[in-house]
Amino acid sequence: MSAEQRMMELGMALPAPASPAGRYVSATQAGNLLFTSGRAPRAMDGGPAKGKLGREYTTAEGYALARSACIDLLALLRHELGTLNRIARFVEVHGAIASTPEFEAHAEVLDGASDLLFEVFGPAGMHVRSVIGVTSLRQGVPLTVRATVELKPD
Amino acid sequence: MSAEQRMMELGMALPAPASPAGRYVSATQAGNLLFTSGRAPRAMDGGPAKGKLGREYTTAEGYALARSACIDLLALLRHELGTLNRIARFVEVHGAIASTPEFEAHAEVLDGASDLLFEVFGPAGMHVRSVIGVTSLRQGVPLTVRATVELKPD
Amino acid sequence: MSAEQRMMELGMALPAPASPAGRYVSATQAGNLLFTSGRAPRAMDGGPAKGKLGREYTTAEGYALARSACIDLLALLRHELGTLNRIARFVEVHGAIASTPEFEAHAEVLDGASDLLFEVFGPAGMHVRSVIGVTSLRQGVPLTVRATVELKPD
Repeated sequence: MSAEQRMMELGMALPAPASPAGRYVSATQAGNLLFTSGRAPRAMDGGPAKGKLGREYTTAEGYALARSACIDLLALLRHELGTLNRIARFVEVHGAIASTPEFEAHAEVLDGASDLLFEVFGPAGMHVRSVIGVTSLRQGVPLTVRATVELKPD
Repeated sequence: MSAEQRMMELGMALPAPASPAGRYVSATQAGNLLFTSGRAPRAMDGGPAKGKLGREYTTAEGYALARSACIDLLALLRHELGTLNRIARFVEVHGAIASTPEFEAHAEVLDGASDLLFEVFGPAGMHVRSVIGVTSLRQGVPLTVRATVELKPD
Repeated sequence: MSAEQRMMELGMALPAPASPAGRYVSATQAGNLLFTSGRAPRAMDGGPAKGKLGREYTTAEGYALARSACIDLLALLRHELGTLNRIARFVEVHGAIASTPEFEAHAEVLDGASDLLFEVFGPAGMHVRSVIGVTSLRQGVPLTVRATVELKPD
């Protein structure tokens, strides 16, 4: 089953991707690799989420935030490529989580993004990953997720 | 107009790039991609800058610091390549900003690097970007910027 | 002398690499580039290390921890590739160090990884590097190291 078919089966609609917050673009391509900028989650009311893990957000809420940021990542990829079916596989996913010094559940939070990629892409969604706890992020967003994907040959 | 011509028109001279601070190199190449190490800004007196955004430095000062780090990035690229004209395009730019937990203007700071790349390279300077607020950086520098660029075929 | 011969000469045995801590894989390949997930050090008793640089760990201890994380990186690479001799060169190494806001010896700590790569691979172990001081890392580990390596043609 293709990624787009899995999206339909999951009943998952993609919103318009967020626009760049500065003098940069959301995606670049070099050879058959596509690189993305960092994607932030949306709050339940549709606006930008704001706060830190371990203070404003629990780990379970962080999982949902990482999934939300990953939905914006998929929205961006479909916008850039026309269809998610052009993706051969995910290569790298990097997460940055605004968190307190005591926070330790970074992996559990980022699983919200990784699990979604597996649901939609299956084994082709499996990626290497890094996740760090950062002091602060732009506009106070609680986390960002970025990815490198390999495209199918034209 | 070529990148080197734009540099001349901007009246921009490049200093010698900073040397590695440990057992590593400043640039590596794989295929037609060139990767750089993190570049730090210089203080007004020419020495290394030191301090955190949101405490020792304002956002406007941070913008100037990001521009300064990007000048060191360009100095490194010219040193490695002989001429900036060998660059086909910028692919990725990653910024790390030493900042207080309350700092939120990461994007406005990193624009100091992104704007410079656009001034010199035009659309070929447009890149994907990530920017994070970190606890601390080597030797207390306020920010670092690193990049991946695609080279023109030989 | 090959990397595997140098390992023998150094009397260095590699343990089994650590398993992924979430829904991801430890290595992915795109073209002749191999990407790894972040690798953590082990404590002296063989379990995971825990704490921050500038508080629980000194810079000298951090150097040993970075070397330990790099040993897990080499273990992973041999596990994935069958032999370290398939590595043409190291391209990128990225370090994240859980540290206090006052910590400044990031470069000295990450040299623990870079020095090991030079011991085993010689000039082919030279890489570009970034290192940041982060608020916290998964499960409280003091640092992580990840790499991109270029493989020899088949």
